[in-house]
Amino acid sequence: MTATIPAGVETARDLVGPAIAAAVATLSPDVRAVAAYHLGLADADGTPSAAVPSGKALRPALALLSTRAAGASPEQGVPAAAAVELVHNFSLVHDDIMDGDTERRHKPTAWTVFGVGAAILAGDAMLVLAQDILLEGPAPNSLWASRCLSASVQRLIAGQGADLAFERRDDITLEQCRQMAGDKTAALMACACSIGAIYVGAPADLAMGLAGFGAHAGLAFQLTDDLLGIWGAPEVTGKPVRADLRARKKSLPVVAALTSGTAAADQLGALLASPDPLSEDDLLRAAALVEEAGGRAWAETEADSQLAAAGQCLSDTQMPADVRAEFAGIAEFITARQS
Amino acid sequence: MTATIPAGVETARDLVGPAIAAAVATLSPDVRAVAAYHLGLADADGTPSAAVPSGKALRPALALLSTRAAGASPEQGVPAAAAVELVHNFSLVHDDIMDGDTERRHKPTAWTVFGVGAAILAGDAMLVLAQDILLEGPAPNSLWASRCLSASVQRLIAGQGADLAFERRDDITLEQCRQMAGDKTAALMACACSIGAIYVGAPADLAMGLAGFGAHAGLAFQLTDDLLGIWGAPEVTGKPVRADLRARKKSLPVVAALTSGTAAADQLGALLASPDPLSEDDLLRAAALVEEAGGRAWAETEADSQLAAAGQCLSDTQMPADVRAEFAGIAEFITARQS
Repeated sequence: MTATIPAGVETARDLVGPAIAAAVATLSPDVRAVAAYHLGLADADGTPSAAVPSGKALRPALALLSTRAAGASPEQGVPAAAAVELVHNFSLVHDDIMDGDTERRHKPTAWTVFGVGAAILAGDAMLVLAQDILLEGPAPNSLWASRCLSASVQRLIAGQGADLAFERRDDITLEQCRQMAGDKTAALMACACSIGAIYVGAPADLAMGLAGFGAHAGLAFQLTDDLLGIWGAPEVTGKPVRADLRARKKSLPVVAALTSGTAAADQLGALLASPDPLSEDDLLRAAALVEEAGGRAWAETEADSQLAAAGQCLSDTQMPADVRAEFAGIAEFITARQS
Repeated sequence: MTATIPAGVETARDLVGPAIAAAVATLSPDVRAVAAYHLGLADADGTPSAAVPSGKALRPALALLSTRAAGASPEQGVPAAAAVELVHNFSLVHDDIMDGDTERRHKPTAWTVFGVGAAILAGDAMLVLAQDILLEGPAPNSLWASRCLSASVQRLIAGQGADLAFERRDDITLEQCRQMAGDKTAALMACACSIGAIYVGAPADLAMGLAGFGAHAGLAFQLTDDLLGIWGAPEVTGKPVRADLRARKKSLPVVAALTSGTAAADQLGALLASPDPLSEDDLLRAAALVEEAGGRAWAETEADSQLAAAGQCLSDTQMPADVRAEFAGIAEFITARQS
């Protein structure tokens, strides 16, 4: 496993970034300022700070690869890639409000700078831009791509809705948690991996093979992220150590531990149910209990098997060998545990 | 002028309501509960309370009329009408959060019942549903209708963004205020009046004539609403008396007064700039100053001339006489000042 950013991700940023910047430039001044700030195109006072968005461009890279998988040039997939990245950022801006997160990409989140109202609007605007970019393309492919995107946005919303509801519940089954992660993370990843192909008119079996790869890789990615949220080093995750435990997030390893039927599960449940803030000692103990209850091992095994399933989808789907290798490289990159 | 609800509005509710209810039923349980509550389809605890949404169905009625203007049956325009109404409700749910409004349609607003996060998601979901309902229809008309809707949603977002920004400014020109109202209210009304025609493949000149009617009628509607927000009786508006003044809203009559260059304008500006809550006496005085500065007369004259311009658009556009009469009836209904 490697932690080096695959070259395709950098290329995608250069290719897709200008399309995103151009789309954001069409927004009204008040809304544009917030979207541009969130994307790293401008400072909080409106001063332009970059020509292309500062995010990792992972989803655009996958979308361009899927265009190439269908035998088209990456350039032809730019609208599809820009649409997926705008949807991803719509969800980040809205989720930051809902989760009360104050920092993202080492900057204060949009709602803390511009207010909740302005951040809601900026998210809304990016969502509409995404659909509109797609629909500028020639029908019927643009239309199919748009419907594919809509379906994944509804799953993304469903997943975030379940995640919020889980905060108030202590009876989540592992299956419900996996469904939530599938909706919240894997659905948009599946869309990113197939929308470029759909947008250039690929046959259904190619699109479905790519979507299957994306869904499995997306789940592996979420499992890895959950593991890093408990055991990852702050310098790798960009978040405080054990941040997810502190927030009592019902992540996959935690739910796997809680539903393990072990003594450690009961102790973990009691610890997380306490109404008081968790001390550093509590957090260390919680992490140890997740491990003792088998939550860590389960998540590691599950991540590996999802990654293997993703690889199987790749092998089973016809595409140029170099494209397949790049897909595999990105899947490995996003599931590298670096621990 | 009449305050009786035109028959077409009731018919539209019966025709379009089931399509909206069916769309909402496809959402995930957590998100569906919030959307159904907001639309009056269910109580806060999830108990179904009605088969069709409880709103006035004004925009659906306009959309179905525009379908008929193009020579098609109202049934053919149902997806377009449902899409506009879903967008309208998306904006209500999000605006209630931004404006901190706690009551709508004589019920607690969605965010006060389910929390801000869940209400953001329900709004997002209704926005996506709107686009998806349209795109289920046959291309290319569905595609044009979808792009027409996207464009009006972006204006709606721009208008709400400007409205929020105006709260922190005391130098709004009347032209900026009119632009804001055009974006926030008139754009979706123009879309409602033309999207049905576009959806059934009407020629561009019909669609443009109908959109012009909707834009003028929408501005007349906003001016009327602004006047009622200051001088309307609470039993008519459903809001506390002088609620807009209490919230120091930079509505059109207020900005017309503030920019009148009169002594009353200066006094009004000083009154609204005071950091303290406004007493009942202050509110009475503010209303009197808006009137003295000419804001009320300006808004009344402007509403009448926008209504006349809407009527002119109707006369200039070819459509069946009964459809034209129904459009005119709705325009009169929504601008009846009842004072």
